[in-house]
Amino acid sequence: MLKIALAQINSTVGDLAGNTRKILQYAAQAQKEGAELVVFPELALCGYPPEDLLLKKHFVADNIKALDALSKKINDVTVIAGFVDSGAGGKIYNAAAVVGKGKILDIFHKKELPNYGVFDEKRYFSLGQNSGITMVKGVKIGINICEDIWINGAVYQEQARAGAQILINISSSPYQAGKLKLRQELLVGRAKETKTHVMYVNTVGGQDELVFDGGSMIISPSGDLIARARQFEEHLLMAALNPDTRRCSPKGPVFSLSQSPFPTVLRQAQGPGESFIAPLLDEAEEVYKALVLGTRDYAFKNGFKKVALGVSGGVDSALVACIACDAFGSRNVTAISMPSPFNSKATRQDARQLAKNLKIELKEIPIKRIFSSYLKTMAPYFANMPSGIAEENIQARIRGNILMAMANKFGGLILTTGNKSEMAVGYCTLYGDMSGGYAVIKDVFKTKVYELARFRNSISREPLIPESILFRAPSAELKLGQTDEETLGPYEDLDKILMAYIEGHASPQDIVASGKDEKLVWRTIRLVDMNEYKRRQAPPGVKITSCAFGKDWRLPITNRYRE
Amino acid sequence: MLKIALAQINSTVGDLAGNTRKILQYAAQAQKEGAELVVFPELALCGYPPEDLLLKKHFVADNIKALDALSKKINDVTVIAGFVDSGAGGKIYNAAAVVGKGKILDIFHKKELPNYGVFDEKRYFSLGQNSGITMVKGVKIGINICEDIWINGAVYQEQARAGAQILINISSSPYQAGKLKLRQELLVGRAKETKTHVMYVNTVGGQDELVFDGGSMIISPSGDLIARARQFEEHLLMAALNPDTRRCSPKGPVFSLSQSPFPTVLRQAQGPGESFIAPLLDEAEEVYKALVLGTRDYAFKNGFKKVALGVSGGVDSALVACIACDAFGSRNVTAISMPSPFNSKATRQDARQLAKNLKIELKEIPIKRIFSSYLKTMAPYFANMPSGIAEENIQARIRGNILMAMANKFGGLILTTGNKSEMAVGYCTLYGDMSGGYAVIKDVFKTKVYELARFRNSISREPLIPESILFRAPSAELKLGQTDEETLGPYEDLDKILMAYIEGHASPQDIVASGKDEKLVWRTIRLVDMNEYKRRQAPPGVKITSCAFGKDWRLPITNRYRE
Repeated sequence: MLKIALAQINSTVGDLAGNTRKILQYAAQAQKEGAELVVFPELALCGYPPEDLLLKKHFVADNIKALDALSKKINDVTVIAGFVDSGAGGKIYNAAAVVGKGKILDIFHKKELPNYGVFDEKRYFSLGQNSGITMVKGVKIGINICEDIWINGAVYQEQARAGAQILINISSSPYQAGKLKLRQELLVGRAKETKTHVMYVNTVGGQDELVFDGGSMIISPSGDLIARARQFEEHLLMAALNPDTRRCSPKGPVFSLSQSPFPTVLRQAQGPGESFIAPLLDEAEEVYKALVLGTRDYAFKNGFKKVALGVSGGVDSALVACIACDAFGSRNVTAISMPSPFNSKATRQDARQLAKNLKIELKEIPIKRIFSSYLKTMAPYFANMPSGIAEENIQARIRGNILMAMANKFGGLILTTGNKSEMAVGYCTLYGDMSGGYAVIKDVFKTKVYELARFRNSISREPLIPESILFRAPSAELKLGQTDEETLGPYEDLDKILMAYIEGHASPQDIVASGKDEKLVWRTIRLVDMNEYKRRQAPPGVKITSCAFGKDWRLPITNRYRE
Repeated sequence: MLKIALAQINSTVGDLAGNTRKILQYAAQAQKEGAELVVFPELALCGYPPEDLLLKKHFVADNIKALDALSKKINDVTVIAGFVDSGAGGKIYNAAAVVGKGKILDIFHKKELPNYGVFDEKRYFSLGQNSGITMVKGVKIGINICEDIWINGAVYQEQARAGAQILINISSSPYQAGKLKLRQELLVGRAKETKTHVMYVNTVGGQDELVFDGGSMIISPSGDLIARARQFEEHLLMAALNPDTRRCSPKGPVFSLSQSPFPTVLRQAQGPGESFIAPLLDEAEEVYKALVLGTRDYAFKNGFKKVALGVSGGVDSALVACIACDAFGSRNVTAISMPSPFNSKATRQDARQLAKNLKIELKEIPIKRIFSSYLKTMAPYFANMPSGIAEENIQARIRGNILMAMANKFGGLILTTGNKSEMAVGYCTLYGDMSGGYAVIKDVFKTKVYELARFRNSISREPLIPESILFRAPSAELKLGQTDEETLGPYEDLDKILMAYIEGHASPQDIVASGKDEKLVWRTIRLVDMNEYKRRQAPPGVKITSCAFGKDWRLPITNRYRE
C-alpha cells in the first residue's frame, strides 16, 4: 500500500518563504497521518501565475534556492511540488520536483504549455523533454502538469505506456462556473483510457482576477470517483493505493484544513478509514463562493483586512455587501451611502435596511453640497447648455472621490459594485462608480446578480437583502425617472446577447439568427465595441465565466471593425 | 529590371474597407510611376495587431473576403500584402498574399511567431510550412514576415539557398528609441550573409500603445543602404533591380505620400532617377515624433479631432501641450488650468505664458470652492484628524472630474500628462491626474521629459515652453512647500534606478552594486512593486522604451515577492 496525500493549498504569488512554510506544514501533517507521498499543486512554491516575475533571473534563482532549502527538510516522506526550473541558455520550465531523503530526487518539465484564454505560458517557459516517470516506494508514477493531461493523447499516454501505475497531475486550473464537472469528466476519461489511477491536485485561492477552486480528486482505473476535496478551501485529501492490484482503497484517511490562509488551523474532517467526496455545489453557491474567496484573497494577500463600498439601495451593491460580509466579517465592512436629490426615499431606506440586516456600519454622506459647488464653478462654461451626461457623471465621480478619500483616511480596500452587463455596454462612469481597488462582480451578468442575491437570501434565516431591492426596476438614479432597461433594453435579452458575443465570439448576424431583436443586437454590440477604453481602466475582479474582461479578453481599443 | 515599390502605409486595425482602399490607392500610384511589384506591410489589410479580433471567425472571414475583392482589382501589377489566412481545423496564419492578374497567385505563412514583449502571436497563429518562394516577372523572390528575418538561420536562409534573388520582409515592427538602427544592422547582416538584396517594408502609424515608425529600407547584397523611407510618415519607396547581375540600381524613382492618413495627399519628394535615403533622426527628435504620431493616431482613429488637457505650469503638461499642438494644431487644443490655493503665482503665470506661446485657448477653473465643499461635507468624518494624503488626492480628483466634465460637455479627448517616473513609483493620483483617454508621456522618464522639452524649444524661433518652467523644481503643488525630489530623491538617480529595474529586469542588489544609493534603490523598488494597481488602471500611452507599462509589463498586482 502506498499512502498518498493530495495537499490542495493556497499559495501566494511571490511569497517564497510563506509558501515554503505552508508546504512543510502540510507535508508534516500528512506524514503524521501516515502519508508516504505528499503532492502539491503546479508552481506551489512560487504561486500561480507568477507572470513577468519569471523574467527576473533573481526571482527564478530565489525560487530554486527555496526548493533546495525545502528539500533539506524533507526526509522521511516524499514530496512532489511545482516550482520554476532553470536550464541552459536562460531557459526556464514549469516544473515538478520530487523531493525526499533531504534532496531533490527528480524533476519533470511541463510539455504542453497553454497560451490561450488567460494563459501566457509560451511567453515564459520552454518545452520539457523528460518522461515524468519516477519511482516512489516501488510504485511507478507518471507525473504531469495541468495542460499535459488535457491535451489528447500526449504526455499522459506515454507515461501509461511506460508502465506508470498512477498518473499524478498537479494543476493550477482557474475557476469558471461548472469547470469542476468538466475536469472530472476529463479525468474519468483519462483514467479509463490508460487503465490507471489518476490523482489530481489543484491549487485553491485567489490571485488577482483568477480564483483557483481546488476540487482535487482521485479517479480509479475504471473511472470511479474515489475521493474529491472541497472547492474554495484548503484540503488534505488522502488515499491508500495497492500497486499490485492497481486498486485504490476508497477508505484512505482524509483530512482537511481550514479554508483561511490566515491563520491555518488544522482540523480533521473525517475519521481514518472513511472516504471523502465533497458534494458538488449548485451553480449559484459555487459562483458565490468563488466571489467570496477571490475578494478575500485579493484583500488579504495585498494587506487589507477591511473594506468599504458605496451602497445605493440597488441590487448590485447589496450583493457585494453580502459577499464582503462573508469574506471579511460584518465588523470589517463599512457601507457608505451617498444620496443625491435624485435618489428616492425608497432606495435610501433600503440601503439602511440592508446595513441593518448585515450588521454593518452605514455612513450617509450626501453629495448635494459638493454637486452644487461643481455646478456653480462650471456655470460660466456650461451656461445655456442643457443638463446631460456631464452632470450625471459629475455626481458619480463625486461619489468615487468620497470613497477614495475615506479609504485614504481610514485605510481599507474600496470594493466597486458594477456588474458585467454594465461593464460590457459601458453603462458606468469611469473614475466614478468604477473607482476602487476590486470589482467584485465585474464578471457577473445582471441576471446572475439577481440569482446570486436570491441564493444568498435563501441560506440565511431572514433574507439579508430586502425584497424591495429585488423587485424594484434597476436605476442609476443620476437623473429623474431613469431606469436601466429603458436605456439598455430588458436585461434578460441584453445578457443573452452579451453572452453570445463575449463568450461565444458570435457575430451579430448569428445572434440575430438565433432569434434576438435585430436592433437591440446591433446597438448592444456597438456599445460593447465602443467601451473598450472604459474596461481597460477598470479595477480587477473575480473571473467566473469562460471569458471575463481581463486576460482572456484582449481587444484593441482602436478598432474600426464594425461587425 | 524589376521595379519594386515598398508601400509604407498606415493601416487601421479592423478597418478592412479603409485599408483596402489605401492599398489600392498606393498600388495605383506605384504602378503609375512604373512599379511592377508593390509590397505592403505585415497584416496591412486588417491592421496590426488585431489581437482578439482574431478569435472571431467572422473577422477572419471578412478579411479574406476583402482580399478576394482586392485581388480582382489588381491586374497589371503584382502586389504582396499581409493578411490573416485560415486553414484546416480552425487554424489561422499571419500571411502574405501575392496578388496579380485579378487573383491570388501565392500565399506564404509566417513561421517564426513572436510571443514575448508586446507580442502574443502564439495565442492566435499556427506555424507556416511553405517556402515563401515566389516568381515575379522572372525574378525569384523569398517572402518572409517580420520575425522570420530576425531569428538567426531560419526562414530567410532556406529561401536564399533555394535561389531567391531578393528577400522581401514585410513587417509591423513597433517603435522603441533607437530601434531603426537595430533593424538596419540586422538587415545589413542578413543581406551580406545571404548575398541577396533585402527589401524591408514596415508599417507606420499608431495603434493604442504602439507606434510603428516605418523606416522601410533596401539593402544591397554587399550590405549597402540603397534607400530608406522616412520614419513616422507614409512613404512609397521605389527601386529597380537587375536580376541578372543581382545589382540593385540606387537610382530608382522615389515617391512619398503625406504623413496624415486623413486625408492622404500624394506628393512627390524626389524626382525620378534620384535615390532617397531619409536622414537618421537624433534620439530626441525621433522620440518626439513617435509621441506626436502615437497621440494623433489614437485620437483620429478613435474619432477625436480635438483634445484638452490640464496645464499646471509644470514641465510635463507643457511638453504634452506642445505635442498636442504638433499633432492636432493649436486651434484643436484646449488647456485647462485648475489652480488651488497651493498653486504659486509663478506656475499660474507660466501656464498662461505657455498657452500664449502655443496659441491655444486657456480656461482657468479654480477648484477652491469645490475643494471647500468636500472639506465641509467630510468634516464630520475627518474631524480631529490631521490633513494628509486624503486632502491632496481630493484636489487631484476634483481636477480629474472637471476635465472629464469638460470632455463630456464639449467633446474631445482628454490627454493626461503624467510621466514614467511618476507612474513607476505611484507618485500620481488614480482617478485624479491619471484621468483621461490617452497618457501621452507615460513611457517617458522625467529626465527625458526635460530633454524633449528642450528639443522642442530648440526647433522653434522663440522657445514655446517658458524657461522658468524648465528651471523650477518640480512640485505636485497639492500642499505647501512640496517638491517631488524631496519625496522621491533626485530624478537623475531615480530614473537610472527605474531604468535598470524596469527595462533591465535587474535585482536591487545588482543596482546597488552598480553604485546607486542603497536606501534609495530599495525604497524605489518597493514603490514600483506596491503601485502595480495604479498602473493597471492607467489610460494607454505611447510606448517608446523597450519595456513600457503596457503589454510588455505583465506583473501581478498580488505579489509578495520582496526583492
